[in-house]
Amino acid sequence: MAGPSPIPFFETVSAYQKTEAIRAALALDVFSAIAEHQGVLAKIAARCEASERGIRMLCDFLVINGLLAKTDGRYALVPETAPFLVKSSPAYLGDSLEFLLSPELVEGFRDLAGCVRKGGTTVSARGTMETQHPVWVKFARVMGPVIGRSAPFIAELVDTKADRPLEVLDIDSGHGLFGIAFAQRNPRTRVTAQDWAPVVEVAGEHARQAGVLDRYRVLPGDAFEVDLGSGYDVVLVTNFLHHFDVPTCERLLGRVARSLKPGGTAVTLEFVPNEDRVTPPAAATFALTMLATTAAGDAYTFHEYQSMFRNAGFSRNTLHSIPESPQSAIVSVL
Amino acid sequence: MAGPSPIPFFETVSAYQKTEAIRAALALDVFSAIAEHQGVLAKIAARCEASERGIRMLCDFLVINGLLAKTDGRYALVPETAPFLVKSSPAYLGDSLEFLLSPELVEGFRDLAGCVRKGGTTVSARGTMETQHPVWVKFARVMGPVIGRSAPFIAELVDTKADRPLEVLDIDSGHGLFGIAFAQRNPRTRVTAQDWAPVVEVAGEHARQAGVLDRYRVLPGDAFEVDLGSGYDVVLVTNFLHHFDVPTCERLLGRVARSLKPGGTAVTLEFVPNEDRVTPPAAATFALTMLATTAAGDAYTFHEYQSMFRNAGFSRNTLHSIPESPQSAIVSVL
Repeated sequence: MAGPSPIPFFETVSAYQKTEAIRAALALDVFSAIAEHQGVLAKIAARCEASERGIRMLCDFLVINGLLAKTDGRYALVPETAPFLVKSSPAYLGDSLEFLLSPELVEGFRDLAGCVRKGGTTVSARGTMETQHPVWVKFARVMGPVIGRSAPFIAELVDTKADRPLEVLDIDSGHGLFGIAFAQRNPRTRVTAQDWAPVVEVAGEHARQAGVLDRYRVLPGDAFEVDLGSGYDVVLVTNFLHHFDVPTCERLLGRVARSLKPGGTAVTLEFVPNEDRVTPPAAATFALTMLATTAAGDAYTFHEYQSMFRNAGFSRNTLHSIPESPQSAIVSVL
Repeated sequence: MAGPSPIPFFETVSAYQKTEAIRAALALDVFSAIAEHQGVLAKIAARCEASERGIRMLCDFLVINGLLAKTDGRYALVPETAPFLVKSSPAYLGDSLEFLLSPELVEGFRDLAGCVRKGGTTVSARGTMETQHPVWVKFARVMGPVIGRSAPFIAELVDTKADRPLEVLDIDSGHGLFGIAFAQRNPRTRVTAQDWAPVVEVAGEHARQAGVLDRYRVLPGDAFEVDLGSGYDVVLVTNFLHHFDVPTCERLLGRVARSLKPGGTAVTLEFVPNEDRVTPPAAATFALTMLATTAAGDAYTFHEYQSMFRNAGFSRNTLHSIPESPQSAIVSVL
């Protein structure tokens, strides 16, 4: 057991500086400059059109926080994070800050004590769940590279053999990459993507870019109100349920159940902490974002999801962890 | 070597949430409530006049980040940080947020990319070093419990035997606790505390509370301009030099040298990273704050301080790490 130390207190209080450091480094494209110039300070500064002093102080801070290495005064990328930080990399995540640090999300944390008192967001009655909230267009535009990484894994998990025609409904499609992955995996799959009109437009654009638009239909509207249709083999519910309280989730899952064929499958992508609600860290921390930005959302446990799916008429649920992701997939059969 | 994972990226981007979580927890006095109510959620919520849901989500987040523990649904303080978080504790640090998260400091980070480009703060020409900047009154009022913890250690380090009269000059006294510790240790010590008038007024108040006002003189003015006097045995330069560039530090140290008796001692309290500038973390991260909030300040290495003191006429410097503190003391003899 370590003795008392104020250092963890200072680290936590000053944590906002880490957010600002990675925001600045991405804005200046420091990581690409390091990759191109073998980590030589003067060259990085010239490439970033910045002072050597400022680059040195920023890069040292990133070294301390594990996003860079430093040897004999030279900076280097770290293999664990390099693919996500260098702009030319296909896995580059820098654009996701437009959503992750959007004023619409960050403002939820501005009066976190107020949220704790109230038990939900203080920004507005429904927070980011207000109808047509503009942050979801940002989400659709920039979060594909972050969350879409899981899409091929999920398509393979559910449509393992890809040997029969599938009708897929993608509820709250956002960027649409989950439905699109099903269409790409199986040429006989047809996808219906539902989301608010300006969001599902982005999904349609992504379907066109992926070359599956001929098997892709957009269904603009609210997931709780629009006619979802019926007879689907698979319904995808990705990053949606965490925004709502349990009765609202069960209402949505009832609609999902009625839109499926008998024996059909619902696939849920979520942050699913263990029953202790504090592990694994990357899933469990998500609950605070729901407190700050929604009226009643949560990071539900698998036990809670099992209960919701059972109440909506599903018979079996299995939990699948997703490689290199803080999220899990729940596969539920009617 | 770990394989690629986006999780460190997400953690860094979302780090601001840790700042908001500890700010909210201190505002609601959650840590005291946990101590008083054996970590029972319903009682903590009642004591904090907050929702159970909000308290659960906040406390889970603090567990994930190491500031609380959780066993069988009950929360508990962690021995390493408990003394700093419970309001009734003599070591309580919660008030320090008034300085550490003051708008005057945080605004420096709002355009960190701009600071990196320029090589210094973008808030104003001299940032927090503008004459009579109001943040230093906050510093003097609330940072005593944070930094003053080192004061008895430093007084003992320099005035080991406390067996002879000492004249001590406390430059940039702030809260004044360093000079006061010398006066408390040795009843024949007299202290002169210099700082801007509204700041040194706080130091005088602290000297009165400590019962040493009869041996305490305040000297209002700018450290670079006011007549500091001469014939001191010890001059304290605590948390001051990091705000300036090297020539300015040497100018100040020249004034310090001229105010000392022959063979006198200067004591510097500072964040002193190793020569690699990235270890130890708690000292090395401080450089970024200087980039964001001053024109030319830095977390200087011991090698750099040795050179500054030599150029100002000092002959010997020794570096002393301070228990339970991210800072070090440098003892320099004329």
